[in-house]
Amino acid sequence: MSDTADFALYGYFRSSAAFRVRIALNLKSIEVELHPVHLLKDQHRSETYKALNPQALVPTLTHNGQKIAQSLAIIEYLDEIRPDPPLLPRDACGRARVRQIALCVACDIHPLNNLRVLRYLRHALHSDDLARNDWQHHWIAAGFDALETFLKDSGETGLFCHGDVPTLADVCLIPQMANARRIRMELADYPTLLRIEEAAFRLPAFVQARPENQPDAE
Amino acid sequence: MSDTADFALYGYFRSSAAFRVRIALNLKSIEVELHPVHLLKDQHRSETYKALNPQALVPTLTHNGQKIAQSLAIIEYLDEIRPDPPLLPRDACGRARVRQIALCVACDIHPLNNLRVLRYLRHALHSDDLARNDWQHHWIAAGFDALETFLKDSGETGLFCHGDVPTLADVCLIPQMANARRIRMELADYPTLLRIEEAAFRLPAFVQARPENQPDAE
Repeated sequence: MSDTADFALYGYFRSSAAFRVRIALNLKSIEVELHPVHLLKDQHRSETYKALNPQALVPTLTHNGQKIAQSLAIIEYLDEIRPDPPLLPRDACGRARVRQIALCVACDIHPLNNLRVLRYLRHALHSDDLARNDWQHHWIAAGFDALETFLKDSGETGLFCHGDVPTLADVCLIPQMANARRIRMELADYPTLLRIEEAAFRLPAFVQARPENQPDAE
Repeated sequence: MSDTADFALYGYFRSSAAFRVRIALNLKSIEVELHPVHLLKDQHRSETYKALNPQALVPTLTHNGQKIAQSLAIIEYLDEIRPDPPLLPRDACGRARVRQIALCVACDIHPLNNLRVLRYLRHALHSDDLARNDWQHHWIAAGFDALETFLKDSGETGLFCHGDVPTLADVCLIPQMANARRIRMELADYPTLLRIEEAAFRLPAFVQARPENQPDAE
């Protein structure tokens, strides 16, 4: 079934929030029309884009006239309307565990290292390159330290963050690891995360969603 | 039915993430044992607390041996195990809309103004009181501007963010407004948010969850 016309994703190749949504769409084999929004050219701040997404952030998904912003809201929506394969376990405890991992990335790591925050640090707080680099490393390390401890010590961790199939947790973790690699973070202290990343990149859904494999990649 | 022994909430009166969970528990009439974790005394960084929550952040909910961190994961869990009254609408589009609003607060406003971030700004970036105050105002305004536009222009906004009953969206919005008031932000530009706040504080579930009404309030 082709539903190219139904789903459109407004994103940017390097946005890790858009990367999450691309993985979810791929895992569910949903075809999507990609609309690149170039963040460094400030295309997200245009009036046209803000009519889709008043926060002026990527990604936004449109589906049959519905506009949805916030990557986790988009992915939960996709999981509800296309439940197969599921991105959340069936039991409430498992769902809470998966959401906890996803939110650790989506609330407590990623928003701190967003383009708009780095720009504010530079222009309003006059932080230099080194200070901004330390900032990014600091928040990723805080999150990854917690995730490594949590995943390493848990019997519910399998090949992936929760059991042996990818869930919303991996969908959030893998793009964050790509961001960490982009700023050349040392990841040797996170053997469990590295093992999960390796498992994820054995799946085409994750590989095809990578920033470098997007049509707008530079 | 009393289930005091089943549910325990580790939080801090002033944490707006804990405030969200208190509102959700109250809306669902779930009795809970409160365990204050004093953030300014660094109790969240103790080994005992980190065994509950490796991120060393509040809140954490325990329920029948299950430990759940991340306020939104906790609230979705509560909504699944105690569905009445629901905190998410029944339709996928409505659920996406409510989650989008909630995540706008929980990802893009709150984590930037967290205690740990303000401490980093002060100690690592040597930002003064004025710069930190500007920082807080800036991120709240960015989020509230988007939310006001989104809610004002939408036919789905009712007495509350989504229709006429409180949802996860209001559960996130109201504590963020309390934070804005605490730093004396001018809120006159947000008439829709103010109207929703007024509706919320007509409900005891919101009033009783306020920071100043907690046993550990100072």
